[in-house]
Amino acid sequence: FMHEFVKKFGIDRILPPCNWIVVRISGCQFDQFSIIHSLDKPNDETALRLMNASASLMMEQYPDIVFGYGFSNEYSFVFHEKTELYQRQESLILSSCSSYFTSCYVTKWKEFSPHKELMQTPRFEAVALCYPKLKIVCEYLSWRQAECHAGNQYNTCFWMLVKSGKSETEAHEILKGTLSKDKNELLFQQFQMNYNNEPAMFRKGSCIYRRKVEEFAEAEGGDNGTARERWDVKVDHVDLGPGFWRKHPWIMTNCN
Amino acid sequence: FMHEFVKKFGIDRILPPCNWIVVRISGCQFDQFSIIHSLDKPNDETALRLMNASASLMMEQYPDIVFGYGFSNEYSFVFHEKTELYQRQESLILSSCSSYFTSCYVTKWKEFSPHKELMQTPRFEAVALCYPKLKIVCEYLSWRQAECHAGNQYNTCFWMLVKSGKSETEAHEILKGTLSKDKNELLFQQFQMNYNNEPAMFRKGSCIYRRKVEEFAEAEGGDNGTARERWDVKVDHVDLGPGFWRKHPWIMTNCN
Amino acid sequence: FMHEFVKKFGIDRILPPCNWIVVRISGCQFDQFSIIHSLDKPNDETALRLMNASASLMMEQYPDIVFGYGFSNEYSFVFHEKTELYQRQESLILSSCSSYFTSCYVTKWKEFSPHKELMQTPRFEAVALCYPKLKIVCEYLSWRQAECHAGNQYNTCFWMLVKSGKSETEAHEILKGTLSKDKNELLFQQFQMNYNNEPAMFRKGSCIYRRKVEEFAEAEGGDNGTARERWDVKVDHVDLGPGFWRKHPWIMTNCN
Amino acid sequence: FMHEFVKKFGIDRILPPCNWIVVRISGCQFDQFSIIHSLDKPNDETALRLMNASASLMMEQYPDIVFGYGFSNEYSFVFHEKTELYQRQESLILSSCSSYFTSCYVTKWKEFSPHKELMQTPRFEAVALCYPKLKIVCEYLSWRQAECHAGNQYNTCFWMLVKSGKSETEAHEILKGTLSKDKNELLFQQFQMNYNNEPAMFRKGSCIYRRKVEEFAEAEGGDNGTARERWDVKVDHVDLGPGFWRKHPWIMTNCN
Ligand SMILES: Nc1nc2c(ncn2[C@H]2C[C@H](O)[C@@H](COP(=O)(O)OP(=O)(O)OP(=O)(O)O)O2)c(=O)[nH]1
Ligand SMILES: Nc1nc2c(ncn2[C@H]2C[C@H](O)[C@@H](COP(=O)(O)OP(=O)(O)OP(=O)(O)O)O2)c(=O)[nH]1
Ligand SMILES: Nc1nc2c(ncn2[C@H]2C[C@H](O)[C@@H](COP(=O)(O)OP(=O)(O)OP(=O)(O)O)O2)c(=O)[nH]1
Ligand SMILES: Nc1nc2c(ncn2[C@H]2C[C@H](O)[C@@H](COP(=O)(O)OP(=O)(O)OP(=O)(O)O)O2)c(=O)[nH]1
Ligand SMILES: O=P(O)(O)OP(=O)(O)OP(=O)(O)O
Ligand SMILES: O=P(O)(O)OP(=O)(O)OP(=O)(O)O
Ligand SMILES: O=P(O)(O)OP(=O)(O)OP(=O)(O)O
Ligand SMILES: O=P(O)(O)OP(=O)(O)OP(=O)(O)O
Ligand SMILES: [Mg+2]
Ligand SMILES: [Mg+2]
Ligand SMILES: [Mg+2]
Ligand SMILES: [Mg+2]
Ligand SMILES: [Mg+2]
Ligand SMILES: [Mg+2]
Ligand SMILES: [Mg+2]
Ligand SMILES: [Mg+2]
Ligand SMILES: [Mg+2]
Ligand SMILES: [Mg+2]
Ligand SMILES: [Mg+2]
Ligand SMILES: [Mg+2]
Repeated sequence: FMHEFVKKFGIDRILPPCNWIVVRISGCQFDQFSIIHSLDKPNDETALRLMNASASLMMEQYPDIVFGYGFSNEYSFVFHEKTELYQRQESLILSSCSSYFTSCYVTKWKEFSPHKELMQTPRFEAVALCYPKLKIVCEYLSWRQAECHAGNQYNTCFWMLVKSGKSETEAHEILKGTLSKDKNELLFQQFQMNYNNEPAMFRKGSCIYRRKVEEFAEAEGGDNGTARERWDVKVDHVDLGPGFWRKHPWIMTNCN
Repeated sequence: FMHEFVKKFGIDRILPPCNWIVVRISGCQFDQFSIIHSLDKPNDETALRLMNASASLMMEQYPDIVFGYGFSNEYSFVFHEKTELYQRQESLILSSCSSYFTSCYVTKWKEFSPHKELMQTPRFEAVALCYPKLKIVCEYLSWRQAECHAGNQYNTCFWMLVKSGKSETEAHEILKGTLSKDKNELLFQQFQMNYNNEPAMFRKGSCIYRRKVEEFAEAEGGDNGTARERWDVKVDHVDLGPGFWRKHPWIMTNCN
Repeated sequence: FMHEFVKKFGIDRILPPCNWIVVRISGCQFDQFSIIHSLDKPNDETALRLMNASASLMMEQYPDIVFGYGFSNEYSFVFHEKTELYQRQESLILSSCSSYFTSCYVTKWKEFSPHKELMQTPRFEAVALCYPKLKIVCEYLSWRQAECHAGNQYNTCFWMLVKSGKSETEAHEILKGTLSKDKNELLFQQFQMNYNNEPAMFRKGSCIYRRKVEEFAEAEGGDNGTARERWDVKVDHVDLGPGFWRKHPWIMTNCN
Repeated sequence: FMHEFVKKFGIDRILPPCNWIVVRISGCQFDQFSIIHSLDKPNDETALRLMNASASLMMEQYPDIVFGYGFSNEYSFVFHEKTELYQRQESLILSSCSSYFTSCYVTKWKEFSPHKELMQTPRFEAVALCYPKLKIVCEYLSWRQAECHAGNQYNTCFWMLVKSGKSETEAHEILKGTLSKDKNELLFQQFQMNYNNEPAMFRKGSCIYRRKVEEFAEAEGGDNGTARERWDVKVDHVDLGPGFWRKHPWIMTNCN
């Protein structure tokens, strides 16, 4: 029948089973967005906290997300390899994640920036990646953290130079071809800034994951309260090396 | 290098060229959403107008959308077959459309419902369909309109029965197996309601498209103003048959 | 169950409906193959006839093929846009077409080259293309014919130069940057060869399609025989321009 | 340009990296083929040996195949997860494998059946499966072997019943709903046949893989010869359980 016929033109790609699914969401036209809303340069703490708050809500909405990592205007979410969210249909996963993240971002805006009105409708795009082995998911996350580090170090130097009176063109010129340690040196020599003392959230980005915590419920009668375990969502700003995964072995194994 | 390696696990499906792309966005868990926000049954005029307002903003944001059709919590957008939006990458098209629609919906909520707070974060999912021929796009749209009609007629009867004292189970029972004209008859006999007099927006859904209008710019000096043509976005509640396409021949031919 | 589980890792891409499907088969390592079997240069008539014979068998095996075009070691087959061969599963269409073509090629080899043994196992690869409009199928075919023309003109010059005593390097050097008419000129001036008099099969490749022919069945008794129509497969060596399609309007419309 | 344009309609799906690729080739219309060529029922040893010989040639042609398993008219080939054959393009892998297998089958036919002419052009289809983990490849192979066992046991009973005078309908009727051990019992009670004494090639199918063998090269002068190691291709008819993989640990690890 006609209705069956027109439905056939959809595709419904199924993400292959037994693969970790990474959904990376990233802001569109945030160069404009950051100017319009006068975000601090190179890092706006409030904007980053809003990203993290939206990511927290994502983890509540999608229990199969086991880990998230974000910086600047992007966030990557790792779904457990066994997830059956939307029967692993790519279009539904991507569209629903980008929609929900956006919805949280807009809804929470007022809470984080009570004195700044939202002047431009924010928009996020998303891509999905399928990793057959956990080891490659970890490599992916290290890559995003390396991008965070490189971008942030560059931007820190760039804006220090600009604030010190250089034009933007001059600043780019000065930084061209410099290595990581040259940039650290420059910050230290010219601006007495120790890059490693900059906030970890700026340098390392934000990791988000679940962990068990003890909760003390006060006893009703009087006596001793009782301890109860529950899972909560933790935002962390740490290095995503082998040490991290050894210290948090449950993250990737638990399917929630 | 490692970074090139981890990027290879994405897929970036390209929607085939010379195909009309339809993106259908639809609300998730709107059964809950409509209860929490006490939406009118079976149709909440404000909620539908908010959908239409979001669709209008979509047409401004994405100039390659040539037509939109929506009802209830869904909206379909037709992109011109020649669109090069995101180089036709499915994941970016889907995620960005669902994100932007959501962003508009949340941002405009207050304007449409100033006295109702947004209590649940809305979320939309989206699918893409590729139509090789324009004729099949029109069949697709007729299908959605047939769904609008059938659903609305059913819900109108259902809620009339419930308001008249039947239980929900009884109402479903009464409607089981009835044809379209039986339902019209039921409304007329039992409730003196002429279904065809119900608002067109409820019965036919909403079409959205661009059309040329004359604009009178008042002359600065005094004398006669001058007429100028410009495109504006029109929301219409009409039948999407061959008559409609004959009357609006430019809609599908212009690539904006 | 386990068996259902392991089956899920296949993909079964469905070629989108209402699209013309072109399967292009082309020989692998035919540079070696042509040396080992001492094929004539630049064109081996016997080898080309074997390709055409295999294409004829393809048209019998797959009634939904409406047209074929081939030259050198490649053949393109156009399936009608409505074909439901293998429910349009790409993997089955591709693998079965390349298998059957190969099978025909090997089986018929002896018939075409009775005095040449098959020394190397021939192998063909195949790709599928999906065309939403017939016009683009015709453009595709013109493209392949342009490739045939350019390749053949180049090779004709190249081998004439080599036979006249130039080294292969010199021959390439001489032809570098020459235009089509330069090559015609070269053939005429140096070798008194009028390129347009070369066999059409070499210059234009081979088209294959069905056409109605009258068949005279001799009367059994004696008197007059009766004419009957039937479809046969025709191999032609002609230009695939608009004139061709005007003269053979049934080719792309009939779904057999 | 036009040529670039028409090329865009191909798809070139890339099989995802770090996945084991299984290509399963299976005969088309072999019910007819086996009748036309009077193959022995239920198993034709010559036909099976021809399948194995073709599989051997496959392993020489495609060094990235690490393992093959076949029975009846099908063969599965496992490509190492790191294979870069055709840059992992599905269409080229599938079409070239099915073409080459067919070519070998037709070419070798005469050698295996010198007194039987090839009366019908054989044709094979192929599908590709992508396994992210080796463990699932082994499950896949166990599944094919379970199919071999079940099919062969059924066919053995069926043809014994038919040869004993039952009609084909009666034979199917008798076997309906029987379990594996019922069939063993039936063979033993009615035909004094111990199913486990049937040839292993019929019961277990054929495994094909590379292994190191010592080769004794006779010394030229006279004295002692020297032993040299080389890889050869082995065809085996054994159970593909954990024991097999323990005994042949190199098979899946070596990428040749
Ligand atoms: N001032 C400021 N700007 C930020 C911050 N985080 C991100 N941005 C801005 C700086 C960059 O222009 C932009 C991030 O670069 P993208 O590569 O995502 O570019 P953009 O979104 O503009 O372009 P796109 O639409 O994604 O192609 O976001 C922040 O904390 N403060
Ligand atoms: N009261 C009221 N409800 C509406 C209106 N428009 C849509 N809805 C509700 C009624 C249905 O429960 C729901 C539409 O059905 P869907 O098929 O989209 O289901 P829903 O979104 O709940 O589930 P899903 O998450 O998409 O599987 O939205 C309206 O104007 N008034
Ligand atoms: N002597 C001779 N050679 C021919 C004839 N037709 C085709 N060939 C050879 C010449 C070229 O080396 C080869 C066609 O080029 P391809 O682009 O298909 O290359 P080839 O199949 O060698 O490589 P591939 O495995 O497809 O990457 O086939 C012919 O009629 N005579
Ligand atoms: N007599 C005999 N027949 C065999 C032997 N091996 C396979 N066959 C035949 C029996 C079955 O009819 C057929 C295998 O079943 P398939 O499921 O592949 O069916 P078939 O290829 O006929 O259909 P298809 O074109 O693949 O849908 O091949 C054999 O050793 N001896
Ligand atoms: O209490 P927090 O949030 O600082 O979390 P923690 O348990 O101290 O963990 P860590 O200091 O390792 O982040
Ligand atoms: O002015 P509107 O919005 O009613 O639009 P129109 O030009 O009258 O068009 P139609 O009545 O056909 O919708
Ligand atoms: O008899 P043929 O094969 O030459 O075919 P035809 O009917 O003469 O057709 P054309 O000369 O146009 O190829
Ligand atoms: O010599 P073969 O072929 O029997 O091979 P093998 O080395 O004896 O090995 P197995 O008997 O385990 O197949
Ligand atoms: Mg961006
Ligand atoms: Mg970015
Ligand atoms: Mg702490
Ligand atoms: Mg819904
Ligand atoms: Mg719906
Ligand atoms: Mg009006
Ligand atoms: Mg080739
Ligand atoms: Mg070629
Ligand atoms: Mg003629
Ligand atoms: Mg078969
Ligand atoms: Mg089979
Ligand atoms: Mg042995």
